[in-house]
Amino acid sequence: MTRQELFEQIKKKESFLCVGLDTDIDRIPKHLLSFEDPVFEFNKQIIDATQSFAVAYKPNTAFYEAQGAKGWETLQKTLAYIPKDIFTIADAKRADIGNTSAMYARAFFKHMDFDSVTVAPYMGSDSVKPFLDFDQKWGILLAATSNPGGSDFQHLTLGHTDEKLFVRVIRTSAEWGNADNMMYVVGATRPEALKDIRKIVPDHFLLIPGVGAQGGDLQQVCENGMNDQCGLLVNSSRGIIYADQSEKFSQAASHVAREIQYEMSLL
Amino acid sequence: MTRQELFEQIKKKESFLCVGLDTDIDRIPKHLLSFEDPVFEFNKQIIDATQSFAVAYKPNTAFYEAQGAKGWETLQKTLAYIPKDIFTIADAKRADIGNTSAMYARAFFKHMDFDSVTVAPYMGSDSVKPFLDFDQKWGILLAATSNPGGSDFQHLTLGHTDEKLFVRVIRTSAEWGNADNMMYVVGATRPEALKDIRKIVPDHFLLIPGVGAQGGDLQQVCENGMNDQCGLLVNSSRGIIYADQSEKFSQAASHVAREIQYEMSLL
Repeated sequence: MTRQELFEQIKKKESFLCVGLDTDIDRIPKHLLSFEDPVFEFNKQIIDATQSFAVAYKPNTAFYEAQGAKGWETLQKTLAYIPKDIFTIADAKRADIGNTSAMYARAFFKHMDFDSVTVAPYMGSDSVKPFLDFDQKWGILLAATSNPGGSDFQHLTLGHTDEKLFVRVIRTSAEWGNADNMMYVVGATRPEALKDIRKIVPDHFLLIPGVGAQGGDLQQVCENGMNDQCGLLVNSSRGIIYADQSEKFSQAASHVAREIQYEMSLL
Repeated sequence: MTRQELFEQIKKKESFLCVGLDTDIDRIPKHLLSFEDPVFEFNKQIIDATQSFAVAYKPNTAFYEAQGAKGWETLQKTLAYIPKDIFTIADAKRADIGNTSAMYARAFFKHMDFDSVTVAPYMGSDSVKPFLDFDQKWGILLAATSNPGGSDFQHLTLGHTDEKLFVRVIRTSAEWGNADNMMYVVGATRPEALKDIRKIVPDHFLLIPGVGAQGGDLQQVCENGMNDQCGLLVNSSRGIIYADQSEKFSQAASHVAREIQYEMSLL
């Protein structure tokens, strides 16, 4: 998907909501366990219920790998079920030496047909660039993550400057690609980082986890991060998919997604 | 596997060789393609041919994911085929926010039964610790990687000191675990880093890629990195498994592995 297509979808839906499909088989409603593939059935109903309000879906691969080969099939079926005009993110946080990263890129872009993959920066250029080599595909690089451990290394200052590691990661990596094949992950729990990052990469889309269960604030995210083409994908996972754990889970998910979409339409 | 058990195996085999099972279906001998699972057949023959000389096997997950669900099955079959007294490493370079890293740990330690998983440090403590919570299982943290991009961020100096990022990663993370549940990845192509790291973590095992195809030197690795319980697992992937691409590939792999083992027995 191109940046322009993504922006068109955002305007049409008045939404920049990404729904995280972090589907844990131990947390889905019990009545689904009689289906042949309970996790897929759950995802299917969540997608049906939220697709009018969401511009992106982001399955986190950990939840599928925890089910082994079967989980990998569930992931592929889920991807195939997502409407083609909706942006898809494999939240895989991969990266390895060059030829191995190229294998990961092939796994997610060729064997499957995700629009994007999240990528970890620690191993540097040759570990990231293979994700930027595919037409209309995206590498989404971790910059300032939402979790508590994000402070351990990402916010250390470098050399004899006040530059933080995550700022250097963005400055350096921005030269490996451009706003049409790269995005950055910036946690909603890091408002100051978001402000700094928007100055460094005015045009790039930013993927923002941490609104909802992790405590980030949507209004503040928009003030600090929005650009003239929106430039934001705000993710909510648990807050939507586990809004209710009864048989009415999909209605509850729809309701929460619609509320977030409504809030977004006013921003 | 415990550290003591690993060391016993090293003494018995006079080897600290790890064989990387980075099996690319496009690079295996053509006659294997008629098997139902060519990659598994290749791995099986490589394991048969090298197990007397190796103390660890390290499949890199990228090569299996590139084959989708079927690849995941191949990975599981390969793991099951490796003799139980040999240390197994899922070279997956995973890490995510705490609850998600716990899912990855479950995938590799419970759903599968790997002894260890390689882990990326960028997301900090809560992304790493879930891998350290399993009895006799190991998290192997990326420190100074062997690839060219390893220089982009890992060797930056921090704050108003001369401390490099990879040194900080080790100093900080060493407090999250101990020499019985953590190892570090240090590229053979980084001899100076290896020397520094051995001083900081005298007892930890170090996983050393980069000997062979990437140009690292075994003798130098030992001088800089060995401790009184060996403390090293030196990996070779392509140099062994693709030593020959004819029908005699396994004999060639065996020959190269034996030569490395012989060199190790003299060190």
